[in-house]
Parts: sequence; structure tokens; C-alpha cells
Amino acid sequence: MLGRISSPKELKKLSLDQLRMVAEDIRSRMVGVVSSTGGHLASSLGAVELTIALHYCLDTPKDKIVWDVGHQAYAHKILTGRNDKFDTLRQYNGLSGFPSRTESEYDPFTSGHSSNAVSLALGLASARDTRNSENKFKVVAVIGDGSLSGGLCFEGLNNAGHLKKDILVVLNTNELSIAPNVGALSTYLNKLISLPIYNRFKQQLETFMATRVPRGSRILKIADKFEEGIKAMFVPGMLFEELGFRYFGPFDGHDLNRLIPALKNILEIKGPRILHVVTKKGKGYPPAEIDPVRFHGTGPFDEATGAAKKPQSRDLLSYTSVFSRKIVELAEQDERIVAITAAMPEGTGLDKFRDRFPNRFFDVGIAEGHGVSFAAGLACGGLKPVVAVYSTFLQRAFDQLIEDAALQGSAVVFCVDRSGIVGEDGMTHQGIFDIAYLRSVPNMTVMAPKDAKELEMMLEFAFNSNSLVALRYPRADSPEIVLPVEKIVKAKPQIICEGPDFMVIALGSMVAPAFEAIGLLRKNGLSGTLLNARFAKPLDADLLKALSAKHKYIFTIEEGIIEGGFGAAVFEAAQIAPYRIGLPCDFIPHGKRGIILEKYGLTCEKIAEKIKSIVCQK
Amino acid sequence: MLGRISSPKELKKLSLDQLRMVAEDIRSRMVGVVSSTGGHLASSLGAVELTIALHYCLDTPKDKIVWDVGHQAYAHKILTGRNDKFDTLRQYNGLSGFPSRTESEYDPFTSGHSSNAVSLALGLASARDTRNSENKFKVVAVIGDGSLSGGLCFEGLNNAGHLKKDILVVLNTNELSIAPNVGALSTYLNKLISLPIYNRFKQQLETFMATRVPRGSRILKIADKFEEGIKAMFVPGMLFEELGFRYFGPFDGHDLNRLIPALKNILEIKGPRILHVVTKKGKGYPPAEIDPVRFHGTGPFDEATGAAKKPQSRDLLSYTSVFSRKIVELAEQDERIVAITAAMPEGTGLDKFRDRFPNRFFDVGIAEGHGVSFAAGLACGGLKPVVAVYSTFLQRAFDQLIEDAALQGSAVVFCVDRSGIVGEDGMTHQGIFDIAYLRSVPNMTVMAPKDAKELEMMLEFAFNSNSLVALRYPRADSPEIVLPVEKIVKAKPQIICEGPDFMVIALGSMVAPAFEAIGLLRKNGLSGTLLNARFAKPLDADLLKALSAKHKYIFTIEEGIIEGGFGAAVFEAAQIAPYRIGLPCDFIPHGKRGIILEKYGLTCEKIAEKIKSIVCQK
Repeated sequence: MLGRISSPKELKKLSLDQLRMVAEDIRSRMVGVVSSTGGHLASSLGAVELTIALHYCLDTPKDKIVWDVGHQAYAHKILTGRNDKFDTLRQYNGLSGFPSRTESEYDPFTSGHSSNAVSLALGLASARDTRNSENKFKVVAVIGDGSLSGGLCFEGLNNAGHLKKDILVVLNTNELSIAPNVGALSTYLNKLISLPIYNRFKQQLETFMATRVPRGSRILKIADKFEEGIKAMFVPGMLFEELGFRYFGPFDGHDLNRLIPALKNILEIKGPRILHVVTKKGKGYPPAEIDPVRFHGTGPFDEATGAAKKPQSRDLLSYTSVFSRKIVELAEQDERIVAITAAMPEGTGLDKFRDRFPNRFFDVGIAEGHGVSFAAGLACGGLKPVVAVYSTFLQRAFDQLIEDAALQGSAVVFCVDRSGIVGEDGMTHQGIFDIAYLRSVPNMTVMAPKDAKELEMMLEFAFNSNSLVALRYPRADSPEIVLPVEKIVKAKPQIICEGPDFMVIALGSMVAPAFEAIGLLRKNGLSGTLLNARFAKPLDADLLKALSAKHKYIFTIEEGIIEGGFGAAVFEAAQIAPYRIGLPCDFIPHGKRGIILEKYGLTCEKIAEKIKSIVCQK
Repeated sequence: MLGRISSPKELKKLSLDQLRMVAEDIRSRMVGVVSSTGGHLASSLGAVELTIALHYCLDTPKDKIVWDVGHQAYAHKILTGRNDKFDTLRQYNGLSGFPSRTESEYDPFTSGHSSNAVSLALGLASARDTRNSENKFKVVAVIGDGSLSGGLCFEGLNNAGHLKKDILVVLNTNELSIAPNVGALSTYLNKLISLPIYNRFKQQLETFMATRVPRGSRILKIADKFEEGIKAMFVPGMLFEELGFRYFGPFDGHDLNRLIPALKNILEIKGPRILHVVTKKGKGYPPAEIDPVRFHGTGPFDEATGAAKKPQSRDLLSYTSVFSRKIVELAEQDERIVAITAAMPEGTGLDKFRDRFPNRFFDVGIAEGHGVSFAAGLACGGLKPVVAVYSTFLQRAFDQLIEDAALQGSAVVFCVDRSGIVGEDGMTHQGIFDIAYLRSVPNMTVMAPKDAKELEMMLEFAFNSNSLVALRYPRADSPEIVLPVEKIVKAKPQIICEGPDFMVIALGSMVAPAFEAIGLLRKNGLSGTLLNARFAKPLDADLLKALSAKHKYIFTIEEGIIEGGFGAAVFEAAQIAPYRIGLPCDFIPHGKRGIILEKYGLTCEKIAEKIKSIVCQK
């Protein structure tokens, strides 16, 4: 069937049975591709019928679908002219794993961070109404229950309910048993789902009212009062109703037979509406249904069995797994250590901590701002919190870093995972801004380990320092090459090797490739000094000046944006002008980490070339 | 009476009548001091009885009160041993206008930004329970209805309701008619307030249940079910109940006779609770009751009449008022221009725009993150949004700047008011980080005008550029000195004067004092070049290099943090090492803007001294 769908318009010609066949085809295409590319499979499998129903009922791309996060948008991609390229998913120069404005006119926004869809959709709807043009398109935001735990989503709902714009929010929640409860709202949503009889009744009543009774009828007014009474008695959706939305649901998000007519009716209603659907993560692919957490974001796997083709990202050598083990070890020794994650226990490696110390572990939901303020409160209460978070998501707590963590003088340790190039997740997820913005936070110490052993030492250093510390490390394995480690002393770099021709000051993940680059250059008769910076803030200005005075050519290397980054910090501290090697202040596309690092000149060969070109040219 | 209160413990000895006298004394002290110092009067006047009741019922400082924002905490300051210093409020070296950890053991946190109190309080409560020590203190967060519009507050409530910690949130809302509705939640709160009969009944029932019925009684279980039914029928507080809180209220927040027993009872109940009180902003001081908006944050005024002693901050010459007029003028010419504020229509000067173009004006509440994402949506919908926001609050939208505004390639204009030293509001409000963090945002143009005329020109430039632009200007008047203006060309500085001995590259507010400093230095026989940078990003590297080559001594001057700031940008672009004059990456205390600028070397005399010391020494 799928071969016949060149655009969503084709869907409208199909029968219900044919649509179900399309759903099957999409699932099999998705599983086939993701089994070799890796990707966000479970959510996307869950949203197949919902996606079909949306495109069947809407007139896209004139009407707009705004996917929150976007990791449930694979069916949307397949249906909107991108099926033929779907096997390039998440590959360099291939399709993005998230919605992308530049990729398709069906994607009104490029997205990847959670909880902003209502805000963006409300912006579109408000622009539509303000411009008052003929083009009266519909706007639908699709959010998950996770999105709801982010305060930004609440801000959007609160504003949308107030502005009373015509906007539909589709809330796609997972079946009861799958999503762990991470907030009071999860409990509330589960309660909604567990009251099916009333909801059916209520939905039928509302649909009837909305479609069969003439506008302005007195019956409507009476019914309104009656409805108010009913609602109040039965609770469901009240929370959303109080925010100014009309609530419809919950519906079975896999039942096209009911979903399509309901969606059609609800789309005709005015004002802010919420359509609540319940779906099964991983639907239709048994391994993903059984283990939706592993298949949320998966690497390549065997299609027949679901078995991972190579070890998952929690490889024993990865920085994440080193952190995962070490933080448990430290917490064994110090019962004041507590851990906070924003809905990423597995991704950050805090799952081991959670299992070992359930009472000292806090999953705050997709709520990084709260996570940081909460950690500041925990620290002021005498505990030693560690916040493990992806670099790109810590951006969401910049103000809380300054106003709550730093201003209270709190001793909070931030373990900033996925710093630098994250690979296949691409531009919305690159962790390239953290050095620049963390340097702006008063009292913040910023460190980066060159390997696993140093990560362990830095963690110990951070807790012992009783101060505000951020440790950044990439989504990668610790390098195979073994370099010496040295006791961590605040602000002090480590001298790895010395040579007269040039000096490289490398930070964290760039130390190993810089060392290898120096090895390559030795074959060209060039001998250089390598500093493992260890700290990006503070820096020992005197030491850097003294060492710099010995060299004509000084290079800094970092896996982050150059502007305001580590090289700039060296520049500022030592009053020297190094050649800075790093990333541009720009959005960097997806692709394997190695490919992207090479493209941007951060592999040992490229580093060696760069150094040679400068040292030998002059 | 007030003279007898050296600590909150003294309150417990007083009768109700005596407490009322204390309230009167506090009000008169507050009005007396604020009439000469200026400050946040209306909110603090509204919270007098609430503050007395809290300290009466709690055992502070063992028990913790966390004031959200903190602009209602004057009575708290007066009652906690700071009455004798209260006349130094907001003055240099005097009391802070906000809660301050370093100022008093009664202030568990230093605060000033909205919506973080629940997160911080939950951190304290969780630390208490995790440590499981004997010290079982109580934790109370006091929030306003504005706080609730911030997503961070929702994140905190959602997590608190889930963790089921013993924590009391006091929600202090203003009387119906005063607070303008800026979100669906305001409507909800007003509905709560307008249902007094049921609430009284419900509150009595709950207090009775909680205090008179033995724990574990079967009656409790039956009553629970009954209560559930009642709640469902009557709505009030349901939204909070769904978030896992028990809701009590609303109470008259000025009626100590009812507030104290209610508070006592509610403090004894376990789990997360919300006590909703309704107060009158400005209570007890007629001018503030009549015009609470003006007395929210007021300058010095005549105590007898309430008349401002000098024009309010909306002086005709202030940057804010220049923006206020110009944006209306531009919007007259281009109907695509729309304006967004996060609960600051008066402070940002957008009130004129609101009055002129109500349908093109959006007040999103204290929700900067949403404001930025919403603006990105508006821009993608074909409009030209301007977001007017204080520098310190834009920190709250850092991720949305990157992921929503910049990544979509949106043309949004940010008017970043209160950049640099804000004066009396102090450390939580200094707008000193913006150059550093805005430089990290891809595609962002960062500009700063040297005077009112240039602000107007830059606004025109920004809208014509059809790109992402931030304009920063201080809480100050345009300088009296008239300097020439020149057509704005992207990245180009303006040469104000030329001289051989040194070059100063000044940004925005620092151009005028730098010009005057050069005037002073002329008397010392030194003649310098002055560049009005106009842009902090992008910079014309070639031009800067060329000009730098002509001078031995190069200085940059900016009203922002040096680390990663404007001087650093010049450094990076031109590969020169200027002497950078600016502010340290630290928390800068309160005091009149002039005093603080002088303390940090940013007045013309200090700048001249600095330049002289370097140019003449070497």
C-alpha cells in the first residue's frame, strides 16, 4: 500500500481497511530501517494510527502539525514524501531523526527539545488570526505525557487557554503500565485513563452537542450548565478544562475506526481543545512492546529477534557507564550524596544509583529548571546533590544555574553528559554550547576529563571541593590510548609531553586526538608540547603565560563552540592569541560522531594537518 | 509595639489585638521608609498579616519560609531583627530589597526571580527527610498568583505532589479586580475566590477531619470518599488537588482572627498542602490601594499624598520610554509588528503599544521561555515580533533562544532592557550576563545603542534586517552629551574621535563615559581614538585589526561581565589583547546605579584613571 502514498492527500482516497494496511506497511518500513540505522522506534511505532488519522482529517501542509520533541514523527516523515529517503534516517546527509523545517514543508518547525510544541503552535495560530488573511489553516500540536512535565508546556497551555485561539493539542499518553510515574500529573493522567465509561459517555455527549445542535441554540446554554455539572462530578479532564481547554478523551489511539470520526468532529470545534489518546509504545513490534524503554532510542538491532547488534550505548567503556559505576561507589561512602535526573535515568547512567539508593534518587520529569533549583535546595539542606544531565538540556536551566545554584553558594555537582558532538540526534541535541554558557555562571568550576580514569578522579575532586562544579564528557567511549593521570589540582593543567615547536592546550575529549596528532607530526620532524587542560574555568593564568612564553605557536582544541569557549578562556586568561580549533557557533547536522568530528577538523589527522599548515607555513 | 519585637518569638506572647497593632506599626514603618528609598511597597503591604501569622505559627528560623521573588518580604525583614536597619533598604551597603542568605538566618535563600520557591522549598524538605535527622523543621513556600504563571512553579508543584513531602505552599493572590488576567490560571483563581460559601464549608470540614477525628479511624476513610464527591461537585482547588496537593481556602489574608487558627491546623497536616489566601495589594496605605501597579515597584514619594518625588522611571529621556514611543511609531507603519511581554508591560514600556494595538500585544505572564518560543511561532507565521524583556529575565529563555528562535531562523527582535547595572534591585536583577550568553546563540546579532537616537535607529535596522537581533540598553536615561550618529551598517563600529595615543572600543552605555574620559585625558596631554562599537556580534574583524594596528594601547569598555563578554569578542575577532574594562563574573550588590558603576570603575573619571595608569606607566 505504502508505495501508492506519495503525499498525505492519497490517504483520503483510501478505505478504513486500506488505512490499516498502510499502518502495517509503515510499521514494517520503520522497523526495517531503524533496525539498521537505530533511532526512536517505540514512540514512533505508537503514533502510527494517530499520524494517519491526523493527515486523513487535516489538509497538510496548509494545516500545521507541530510534533513535540519529534521522536514520534517517523510515520509523519514516511507519509509526507520522505519514504524513499527513509533508509537514510539519522545518517550524515540523510533524513533528520526529528522534524526539520529545511527538510520538508510538512514540518513547520525544526524541533528536538521537549515541551515547546504548544508555544510554537500557539504562535502560528496567533499569527494566523492577527494577520486575518484568507488562509485559515488549522494548527495541531502533538505532545506526550513527558512533555507535560515540562513547565514550558504548562506556560503554553496557560497562555493558549487565555487567548482562546483555535488550536488542537493532541495529548498522546502511553498505556498505564509503561510510563513510570515521575510527577503528580502522571498519576492524574492514569486516573483519566482508568475511567473509560464516563469518558465514553462524556465524549459522545460533547460530540453530539458540537455537531448536531445548531449554533446559538438555547439548548446549548442549558447543556453547558448541565455539562459543567457532569464534568464536576466526574473529574476527567478537569485540570485541562480549568486551563481553558475543552477536553476530549481518552481515546484508543490505535482504533482508526473511532479516532477518525472523533478527530473530524473535534477539529470542527472552536477554541483551545485537547484530544487525549492512549497508545502503546512499540505497538506492533513485539520486542519493542515488551521493552519500550530500550526501544525508545535504540541502536541497530536484529529485526527478527530485536537483539542489539552491538552493545548498547551503555558500553562498559563509555563515559556514561564509568560515571554510572563511580557515582554509586562514592554514594556508598557518603550518604549525603543524592542524585537528580530530568527523566533520563538510563541515558545518564543514574539507573544504577536509582536501583541501589531509591530514597536518594530523584527523577523530576522533563523539568531541568526545577531539577537545578531543587538541587540547590537539597544542597542548602545539607546534602551533596549530583545532577546528571545532557549538555543540550542543561541549557534549559541557565537561569536556575545562576540564580539558584550559584547565588546560594550551593555545592552541586553537574555531570554534563553528551557534551560536544552527539552524533545521530543532530542539531537540536549537540552539546556544544556548554563551555561558553557555564563559564558565564559565577562561582562555577568547569572541568572535562580526558579519559575514564580522570572522570573518576574529577568526580571525587568535585565532591571534595564542596563547591559548584560542572564536569563535561561526550557520548563516547573513553579513548583506547592510555595517557598518564595526575592528581587534580584546581585550575592546573597536566603536561602530557613537551616539545619546542608548538604547544597544544586540549580540553577533555580532545586530549587523546591531540596526543595522536602530535605523534603524527613527529614523523614530520615537529615536536610539540601537549597540555591536558582539565579545567575550562578557572584557569591558572600565570602558568599558561609562562608555558606560552616558551612557544611561538599555541593551539587550543575543544569539542565546543569557539566563540566564548575554552580557547577564548585561554585567550582571556593568558593574554595570548592561540589558534583555536573547535566548532563554529552554528547548528551542526546529524551523522555518526566520527564523521562530524572529521568534517569539523577534530580528528587526529585533521588536527595534525592544521597544526602543520600553520607551523610550517610561517 | 514594633519596638518590642526583637525576634519573631516575641510575637507569640502577644494577643490578637496586639498583633493587629504590630501590623499597623509595620505598615507605617514600611510606608515611611519606602517613601524615601523606593521599593516594592504594594506587595509587601498586602502580606503584613500573612507574615505575622506565619511567624506566629512557625518556629523560625528553625522552620523555613521561602518567599517567591521576595518582593513581599519587607514585613518579614522588619520582624526578623532587621527593623533598625530597615531605613537602609536597597541602599548601597544597606539591606537588600529581597531575601538574602547572607543577611539573615531567617532567609534560607537569596532570591529575586519568580517561580522558584516551590522547587527550593521542596529541596529543603527532601533534604530534611533524606537526612532523617532529629531536626524536623517545617518548610513553607509563599508564592503569588504571578509565580504560578511561570512553568518552573508548575514543575515544582508537580514534583512536590508526587514526592508527597510535608510542605506547605501559601498561595497569596490579589483581590479579583486588581490583577489583570494574563493566563487561563488567573481566571481559574478568580473563580476560586468567587465561591466563598462552599469554600468555607469545605475548609471547616477538612479542618474538623484533620484535627478532631482520630488517625486511622474508619470514619476518615468514609469521609475521604465523601470528600472526593464533594470536591468533584464543587470544583474549588481541584486543579491543585490533581497535582497531589490538599487545597485549603481561600481565606481573607488580612483577618488574623481566622488566619492564625487555620494556619495552625493546616501546618499540622501531613503531605503537600496549599493554603490560598486573598489579600489586597497596597493594603492600609490608600494611595497604594488605589494604584497598586504604580506602587508595585515605586521610587521615592511623598508619604502624605503618595505623589512621586521625581518623575517615575518612565522619564521621557529614559531608554525605556524612547523604546516605548518608537515601537508604536514603527508598528503604525508595519502592521506585521506584534509585541510580547512577560508580565512587564509598564516596566518595558510596552504599555503604550498595548493601549494602541491591543490585538497585536501579548502578555504571556511570568513565562519568558514560552514568550520566546511563542515569538518564534509568530515569526514563522509571518509576523514581526518584538520581545521586550529585562536582561536578567531573558536568562530564563536561553534554551528557547537557541532551539526555537535561532534554529527556526526566526526574525525576532529582542529589546533587552535593564542591561548592565540595575541599581537598587541588586544582585538577582543585574543584567550583566547578556552579552556573554547572547553571543553563544547562533545567528544572533547583538547590538547596544550609545544614546536614544541610536536606539531608534537600531530598532529600525533590526526590523529591516529580517533576522534575529537583540538590542541591549540600561535602566538609565540617554546621556546628556550629544554625540554624532551614523547610519547603522551591520558589524560596523562608528569612529567618534581619533587620536594617536590609545584606542577605546566602547559598547552602548559606555560610549558616553568613555568619550568624557577621553576629554579628561586630553588635559593630561593624551589624545585617543574612540570607537562606538554598536555591535557586539558580529564584529568586523578586519576593520578592528586595521584600527588596532595603529594603536599601542587598546581598551574595551562594556557594562557586562568581562569573561566571554564584549571585550572578549573583540579579542577573539581581532586577535588583539585589549585591556578590558567591565564587570567581574560575580554577583554585584545593590545600590544606586552611579555608586555601583563607580565602584566597578565604569564612570568617566575611573575610566580615565585606568587608561592613564596603563598608557603612562609603560
